[in-house]
Amino acid sequence: MKSMLQQTVKTLYNATIITMNDGFEVIEKGYLTIEGNTIAALKKGFPETKTNLIDCSGKIIMPGFVNAHTHLPMTMYRGIADDLPLKEWLEEHIWPAEAKHTHEESVRKATRLGLEEMVRTGTTTFADMYFFADAVAEETAAFGLRGVMNEGILDFPINSYKTTREAFEKAYAFVEKWKNHPLITPAAIFHATYTCSKDTLLEVKKMAEEYDLNLSTHISETQHEVDLVTSQQGMTPPAYLHELGMLTNKNFNAHCVWLNPADQELFATKGAHVVHCPSSNLKLGSGIAPVAAYLKKGINVALGTDGCASNNNLDMVEEMRLAALLQKGVNHDPTLLPAREALKMATLNGAKALGMDNIIGSLETGKRADLLIIDTDNTFMQPIYDYYSAIVYSMNSSCIETVLVDGKVVMENRDIQNSN
Amino acid sequence: MKSMLQQTVKTLYNATIITMNDGFEVIEKGYLTIEGNTIAALKKGFPETKTNLIDCSGKIIMPGFVNAHTHLPMTMYRGIADDLPLKEWLEEHIWPAEAKHTHEESVRKATRLGLEEMVRTGTTTFADMYFFADAVAEETAAFGLRGVMNEGILDFPINSYKTTREAFEKAYAFVEKWKNHPLITPAAIFHATYTCSKDTLLEVKKMAEEYDLNLSTHISETQHEVDLVTSQQGMTPPAYLHELGMLTNKNFNAHCVWLNPADQELFATKGAHVVHCPSSNLKLGSGIAPVAAYLKKGINVALGTDGCASNNNLDMVEEMRLAALLQKGVNHDPTLLPAREALKMATLNGAKALGMDNIIGSLETGKRADLLIIDTDNTFMQPIYDYYSAIVYSMNSSCIETVLVDGKVVMENRDIQNSN
Repeated sequence: MKSMLQQTVKTLYNATIITMNDGFEVIEKGYLTIEGNTIAALKKGFPETKTNLIDCSGKIIMPGFVNAHTHLPMTMYRGIADDLPLKEWLEEHIWPAEAKHTHEESVRKATRLGLEEMVRTGTTTFADMYFFADAVAEETAAFGLRGVMNEGILDFPINSYKTTREAFEKAYAFVEKWKNHPLITPAAIFHATYTCSKDTLLEVKKMAEEYDLNLSTHISETQHEVDLVTSQQGMTPPAYLHELGMLTNKNFNAHCVWLNPADQELFATKGAHVVHCPSSNLKLGSGIAPVAAYLKKGINVALGTDGCASNNNLDMVEEMRLAALLQKGVNHDPTLLPAREALKMATLNGAKALGMDNIIGSLETGKRADLLIIDTDNTFMQPIYDYYSAIVYSMNSSCIETVLVDGKVVMENRDIQNSN
Repeated sequence: MKSMLQQTVKTLYNATIITMNDGFEVIEKGYLTIEGNTIAALKKGFPETKTNLIDCSGKIIMPGFVNAHTHLPMTMYRGIADDLPLKEWLEEHIWPAEAKHTHEESVRKATRLGLEEMVRTGTTTFADMYFFADAVAEETAAFGLRGVMNEGILDFPINSYKTTREAFEKAYAFVEKWKNHPLITPAAIFHATYTCSKDTLLEVKKMAEEYDLNLSTHISETQHEVDLVTSQQGMTPPAYLHELGMLTNKNFNAHCVWLNPADQELFATKGAHVVHCPSSNLKLGSGIAPVAAYLKKGINVALGTDGCASNNNLDMVEEMRLAALLQKGVNHDPTLLPAREALKMATLNGAKALGMDNIIGSLETGKRADLLIIDTDNTFMQPIYDYYSAIVYSMNSSCIETVLVDGKVVMENRDIQNSN
C-alpha cells in the first residue's frame, strides 16, 4: 500500500520550513503542498485541505542538497589508495585500477551504491563527471535522483572510448537521448585544460553553445596544475579558459584552490561558478580554497564532495560543515561563512552553478519538490536555539528521515523506495 | 530476556579485529572472549567454546574512542551562539547563559543527552571538565560509560561554588568518593593558567600529587591567551606550567594550537600530552594546531571534541577524520597523519594521555572490554580495500552497531541499554 507521502497530491504540515529563498525565510508551524513534481503551496498556518495530510511536528523541511561535483562510478574505488601524493595516487593507483575495472557493468553497480549513499545523506541533485555516462544516467533516472552529466571528455583512450572523436559522438548522443528527461540534464563536461587540446576545448564549447548546455571542468586544483598550464599556455587555467570564451556564467568549475587575484576577478566579472570540494582538497594535500574571499568578491561558490577515491564519501552534511569550519579556522575569524551561508552553498548556490535555480535549490511555490524531512527529536540535534546552526553544525546524515525528488519519495523513514 | 551479548562470559567470532596494539595487528576471522569486564582471549581462528557465541561476520571489532576533552553538561548550550569571536562568544553568551541555567538538575539532564550522543558515536571513555562534577559522575556511572573528571577549578564564583576554597573542598570530596570506582577516575582539573592564581595552581598540584591524579587544563588555545599569560608571567603558558612543576607525563592539555618551538620541546622532553580539538579550534577561529609537527617530535597527541557550545557535537568519528584531513591540507602533504595514525590518536593516544593505557585504548588480553562492533555491510563503508581507511575516511557514526564498556553492553544494534 502506498503511504500518504507516495500520493500525487500531499500536504506536509506542522513543519519548520527552511525555505532558503532570497530572504532566508524560515516558516515555523507551516505547511507545504506538493502536486505532482511541484511545490503548489508553501505558507504559515494550517492547510484547508483534509487530503493526504502528513503531520511534521518536530521536523524540519529543507531543500535537498546539490552536490555540484562527483565522480559517482568511482564509488567502486572508495579507499583504494589513501595518504599518497596526488601524482602517485592518480598514475600508480587510480588510472591502472580504472583501466582494469571500469566497465559498463561495474559503473552501473558503483553508481547504484553511490546513489544510495547520496540519498541517505540528503543529496537530491548532483553533477557528475565520468565515463559511461549513459549508464550513469539510466541508473540515476531509475533510482529517482536528479543528475547533471555527460560523457567526460579528454584526449586519452579509455575504456569508454578510444578516440576523442568517439568521446564527442557519445556526448552528442547523450544530449539527444536525455535532453527532455525530467530528471537528467545533459551538460558539456571535459576533464581539465591540461588533458584536452585546444581543438578539443573548442569543440566542447561548440557543443555547449549548440545545445545551450552548462559546462563543467576541474580547474586550478593544485599549484602543480597552475604551473603546468601556465608554462604551456602562457597563462593560468582560468585565463586560458577565458581566452577561449569558455569562462562564463554557464560554467561551473571544481576545486579552484589556486585562483590568483586576476583569476578571481575573471570569475567575478564573467559570473563563472566555483565548486568548492574541501575534503578532497585537504585529503590530497592540494590546499584550502580561500572561498570566504571568493564570496566577498561576489563569486558564486557551490559545494561538491568529489569522488569516493579522494574523500572518501558523498556526504554533503559533512562537506557543508567542513566548508564552514575551515574558513573560520584558516582566517582566524569565527564570523566568516556563518551557518546559513554554508547551507546556501550546499543548496541554492549549487542550483545556480548548475543553471537550475529556476527549478531547485530553495523551497518556493512553483519549484520542484526536491526536499528533505529532518527528524530533530534525537540526541544529535537537541537542543535547537537556531535552525541553521542545528543543520550545519549539529546534524549528521542519520537525522535525514525522508527524501523527495521531483515530488516522489526516494527514501521514507530511512528506507530507500523504488519509486520508479 | 538477556541477549547473548549481555551475558558475563561471551565470545565474538568471525570478526575482523582492529587491535591498535603496538604492532597495529589486524586479525581477520578472529575471535575475542570477554569474561566479566576483561578481554580474556583474542586470537585468529575459531573458538573452542560453544557458550554464548556471537557471529560477527562482516563486522569490525575495534577499541572504543577516547574523547580526551569534553564539557559534557554544555550539551545544553549546543548551538546557543555561533559564528562569533571567542571573547564575545564567552563573555556575552556562554558565561551569562551558564550563570542563569547551569544548576545541578540541568547538568544531569544535559549530561544524559551528551552520554547518549557519545555512545551513538562510539566513545567509551571521556575526560570531562566542568562543574557539578559529582552529578556528572553519577550520571556517567549509571549510564555505564568510563569517565575521567573532577570539579573544574578556577578563581571565579560560579553556580557550583562561591570560593576557590569551596571548589577544592568539592574536588577533594570527589576524589574520596570516586577513587575506587570501576568506571569513574578522578583527576585534578583546572580551567587555565590565566583563570587561576599561582596559589590555586600550586594547590591543584598538591592535590594531584597527594592522590596520584592525572592533571588536565586548557593551554595555548589562542594567540590572545599566549600574549596575555606572557605579559603577566613573563613566559608562555606551558613554560609557566613547567616552572610550577606541573608539565609532566601525567598532564594532558586541551587545544595547544599555539605552542612555540620551545613549548614543543618542553612537551616532548617532559612527556606532557596534547589533546587536539580541531573542530572547536576551527569554529572559534583559534587556528589549526600543527599536530603533524608535534607527532614528529614524539609528543603524544590525543583527540577531543570539546563541548557542544563550540563544536557542536561530541562525534569522535568526525573529529578523527577532520584531524587526519587537516594536516594533509594545511601542509600540502597527503602522506601526513595516515589513517591508522589518526585512529591511534582517537584510541590509544587518548588512553595514554589519561594515564589509562594499561587498561584501555587497544584490544589486548587482560585489558578492559571497551569496544565497538561496526557494521560494514552498508552503503557508507563498501567497498573496503583497507580497514583503517574504511574506519577513518568512510565510516560515519551510524555504522557503529554495538558498544561495550567494561564488558557490559551500553548500546546493542543502535538501541541504548540500561545496563546498570
